[in-house]
Amino acid sequence: MSIRIGIFGYGNLGRGIEAAIRQNDDLTLAAVFTRRAPETVKIRTEGVPVYCADSAAEHVNDIDVMIMCGGSATDLPEQTPNMARIFNVVDSFDTHARIPEHFANVDKAASESGKVAVISVGWDPGMFSLNRLYAGAILPDGKDYTFWGKGVSQGHSDAIRRIDGVLDAKQYTIPVDEALAAVRSGACPELTARQKHIRECFVVAKEGADLARIENEIKTMPNYFADYDTIVHFITDEELKREHSGIPHGGFVIRTGRTGIEREHSHVIEYSLKLDSNPEFTASVLVAYARAAARLNARGEKGCKTVLDVPPSLLSAESADELRRRLL
Amino acid sequence: MSIRIGIFGYGNLGRGIEAAIRQNDDLTLAAVFTRRAPETVKIRTEGVPVYCADSAAEHVNDIDVMIMCGGSATDLPEQTPNMARIFNVVDSFDTHARIPEHFANVDKAASESGKVAVISVGWDPGMFSLNRLYAGAILPDGKDYTFWGKGVSQGHSDAIRRIDGVLDAKQYTIPVDEALAAVRSGACPELTARQKHIRECFVVAKEGADLARIENEIKTMPNYFADYDTIVHFITDEELKREHSGIPHGGFVIRTGRTGIEREHSHVIEYSLKLDSNPEFTASVLVAYARAAARLNARGEKGCKTVLDVPPSLLSAESADELRRRLL
Repeated sequence: MSIRIGIFGYGNLGRGIEAAIRQNDDLTLAAVFTRRAPETVKIRTEGVPVYCADSAAEHVNDIDVMIMCGGSATDLPEQTPNMARIFNVVDSFDTHARIPEHFANVDKAASESGKVAVISVGWDPGMFSLNRLYAGAILPDGKDYTFWGKGVSQGHSDAIRRIDGVLDAKQYTIPVDEALAAVRSGACPELTARQKHIRECFVVAKEGADLARIENEIKTMPNYFADYDTIVHFITDEELKREHSGIPHGGFVIRTGRTGIEREHSHVIEYSLKLDSNPEFTASVLVAYARAAARLNARGEKGCKTVLDVPPSLLSAESADELRRRLL
Repeated sequence: MSIRIGIFGYGNLGRGIEAAIRQNDDLTLAAVFTRRAPETVKIRTEGVPVYCADSAAEHVNDIDVMIMCGGSATDLPEQTPNMARIFNVVDSFDTHARIPEHFANVDKAASESGKVAVISVGWDPGMFSLNRLYAGAILPDGKDYTFWGKGVSQGHSDAIRRIDGVLDAKQYTIPVDEALAAVRSGACPELTARQKHIRECFVVAKEGADLARIENEIKTMPNYFADYDTIVHFITDEELKREHSGIPHGGFVIRTGRTGIEREHSHVIEYSLKLDSNPEFTASVLVAYARAAARLNARGEKGCKTVLDVPPSLLSAESADELRRRLL
């Protein structure tokens, strides 16, 4: 009784889902849905059909969970509620400020259809959120910190690419070691954006472009760079492709807190990720929550959930007995 | 509508529970139960009664969750099922090999009484188990490692104290830095006990005792020390009390795994704890799960659970809306 997964959108994340499904014997890739012409989309798994996104409803009996692989800006706010009217769904919606609104829309759709939707799955939001929850519940008298990186920020890379004279660019967000050390000490420091992260940029400029102007435009760009110590390197297109084509990321969630009648004892809880491929790791989290969504729905649950709501054991292919024996 | 907590057993862990309850506005300490003469037990919270352990059943209407603070060797196997016949209960049963048996006994009692019992709560078993579960579900093609320390092992300290000529002792378990580095590299090394941990012992000997013999007996003790590199320091009783009276502990759960069609990407998930007080941190985890036990029972659930089963959001005093807004 394999759980049949549909992939809705076949970009980096969708390809990551396809690879992750192969690592889980109890999951099967049933179909891929795309807004492109299906015959132009070549997938890696033999024998699995590629359908037009508009035809998803016709495959309602073939798919147990649809994993939504669109973008958070415009795709998911529309696609996730739409698909939740037909399927159990999982998405990685990550526009933090709009999560309550997205939750409400998806919850309405999934409650009406009797399906389960799990939104904002991945690592942040996702595993980082979970770790903030656990650590905060255990150490209420404390403070938590999130550091991102070292990793590629797509948004910051795009912002550089929009500057006149820039051909291509990659931006790495890098946590500052001294800030990490100060947090781990339990001193509960107040840290500015500049104190927490460095921004390092690798930029390919057009021939003859004014490099000093480009560097200045980057370093003074409001919101993106002005509040940070920013390092700019100009490199060739060949070097960018050779050295900076990966999509690594990661980060740290650290909470320090005190216990004891006199607050005499200090504790540090730290969770960290070091990821070679941001989309493949995110996909691996989504796939585990797709399993949970199918199980929750089979239990009779419906409506919208987040990682904060899902009982951990539902993520694993192993039985509750096995998990207790092996992990506790 | 505060959740009323009972403490069953008033040692280090029970005192930790008492302190932790004060950090949570929605929890109240209702009573302490002891096997000693109640009038000889002085607690830190004014106005809270201390009762004889045998009288617990008389207070069934005053307590929402009983937190069991006895030892795993002989207390909890008997006490937790007994109390689960009357109360929602939480315990920190940590004899790994006997957890399935304890689970079955407690599940029978709690299912019959209609109460919720959460067993094996703390950090290992507990938060470490949870992190093994999440990491394993996300990266099925991987391997995980647990390192303990730097921290005091009560069992190893006791083993040294039983040697003839020893007055007192403290043993620290220390993870080996090179082993941690090898694991984090993603190389999936096979590590022996000796490669993973060092054992450092601070020993107070009787005047005139044969130190060389004591050191040899420690280093060759089967199971406890023979398989490790063990360092023995002889110190005075004053120094032991001054420098080694704390109960620090902690450790690391690390999983590395690969993703991608060709297994081309490597990932590291790491969770670590650095604790000034092992019993106070364990108590803080128990208190959060006591909140969850009360809520699960209020929803109509019954029977035995572990940390693997409990939806994370039930641990927090905050509402689901607040948690989504603040943590996702």
